[in-house]
Amino acid sequence: MEKLTIVKVGGKVVEMDATLQLFLHDFAGIKGYKLLVHGGGRMATNVGERLGIENKMVDGRRITDAATLDVATMVYGGLVNKKVVAGLQALGINALGLTGADMDVIRSDKRPVGEIDYGFVGDVKKVKGELIAKFVQEGVVPVMAPLTHDGLGNLLNTNADTIAAEVAKALCNHFDTTLVFCFEKKGVLMDENDDESVIHRLTKPEFEDLVRDGVVKGGMIPKLENAFAAVSSGVKQVVITMASELGSDSGTRIV
Amino acid sequence: MEKLTIVKVGGKVVEMDATLQLFLHDFAGIKGYKLLVHGGGRMATNVGERLGIENKMVDGRRITDAATLDVATMVYGGLVNKKVVAGLQALGINALGLTGADMDVIRSDKRPVGEIDYGFVGDVKKVKGELIAKFVQEGVVPVMAPLTHDGLGNLLNTNADTIAAEVAKALCNHFDTTLVFCFEKKGVLMDENDDESVIHRLTKPEFEDLVRDGVVKGGMIPKLENAFAAVSSGVKQVVITMASELGSDSGTRIV
Repeated sequence: MEKLTIVKVGGKVVEMDATLQLFLHDFAGIKGYKLLVHGGGRMATNVGERLGIENKMVDGRRITDAATLDVATMVYGGLVNKKVVAGLQALGINALGLTGADMDVIRSDKRPVGEIDYGFVGDVKKVKGELIAKFVQEGVVPVMAPLTHDGLGNLLNTNADTIAAEVAKALCNHFDTTLVFCFEKKGVLMDENDDESVIHRLTKPEFEDLVRDGVVKGGMIPKLENAFAAVSSGVKQVVITMASELGSDSGTRIV
Repeated sequence: MEKLTIVKVGGKVVEMDATLQLFLHDFAGIKGYKLLVHGGGRMATNVGERLGIENKMVDGRRITDAATLDVATMVYGGLVNKKVVAGLQALGINALGLTGADMDVIRSDKRPVGEIDYGFVGDVKKVKGELIAKFVQEGVVPVMAPLTHDGLGNLLNTNADTIAAEVAKALCNHFDTTLVFCFEKKGVLMDENDDESVIHRLTKPEFEDLVRDGVVKGGMIPKLENAFAAVSSGVKQVVITMASELGSDSGTRIV
């Protein structure tokens, strides 16, 4: 099987022109087939604040009311996605920006209201792996925004890490797939105050120990859960690394 | 040749949920292949104002500085485009949102600075007709935002009427192409105060007479110039009509 690298990059990197350009250059340098999933939450928060829309977070998750969804649609689907696409085109990469609604590539269900009403948030139901694979094989580089749809006309805010993992799972029958989560640190750290304490290789039992001991916490937990789920579904490897280290052998390998 | 209907719809219709839904229903009802080009200038002006960005217009054309381009990218490429795509998907239409940067479908040149510096405004240079035709033939309905790119990493604001006309020209060798400009009136009027005074058929010499006599003026002139250019380039017919009359025989036919 041909190799495919799926890179997920967060808002911090893609929202600032300087880091965006460096990142796109590194991304363009990845050999073989590739696909990009981006975030943009910080910029959405910023635009929302400037528009006078209150940013509501519960357990590190954004509560998406109608006004917040509009901001997410503007920032993720428009500003960030199209800047990335135009930037990649300038580097000779045939990028195509996609939300889940475009050609129905990712269908989701609006998250049921439980203890928390997350609002217009979607949990991924179906990824059209065959269709995405066809684009990739034709030399297209999909650039995916963290938005899906429910097939009833509603766009839904969807975690970019989850999208990256679900797309990787849907494509791992078509390609020898590596999933790379770009992160603000060089990888998963043994000591959060020591940037060089990168754990180079992490298994599920080791991860569970680290969670129990409080070494791994907060937003890192769902990120790693996504990573292990991807590996157990056939994704060859998941790498957690710093955006600027893309293409090197550094970072944490989830196996 | 198979029939293709290209519809251009302005901001007023697609920006409000109620008129948007009616329009999408009518658009979905068009038989045969179809493609949609949308505007969104009024919403961009509104979002820009809420963000404290001044809206500059000269001769009915937006002056696009960097901040205004970001707003256009958010509103055209994100909010309007993705709402339309999700709305069409809910009606069983396999919509794909595109800016000119996506798969490099429309390349433009930044307009040279003359008496007026329009800023980040692009004049269409090349439309990938073959590629768009392939999508259409596969049953995809492209939904095009009024944004192009220069291939150097810059998105450029581009008049939606021009995009519709240029796409129609690029596709008229592939399809028996009708281009429909949706308008706030029922067509080109002989008397601007009488909504029923629709000119049902308009030739180039008649148009020139109407311009000289001041009957046709303002933003209607470039719209009709685009229409005649399309017809002289092989587009079978151009229709100017009200969005709510889509599918009927009303409106002005440009021949």
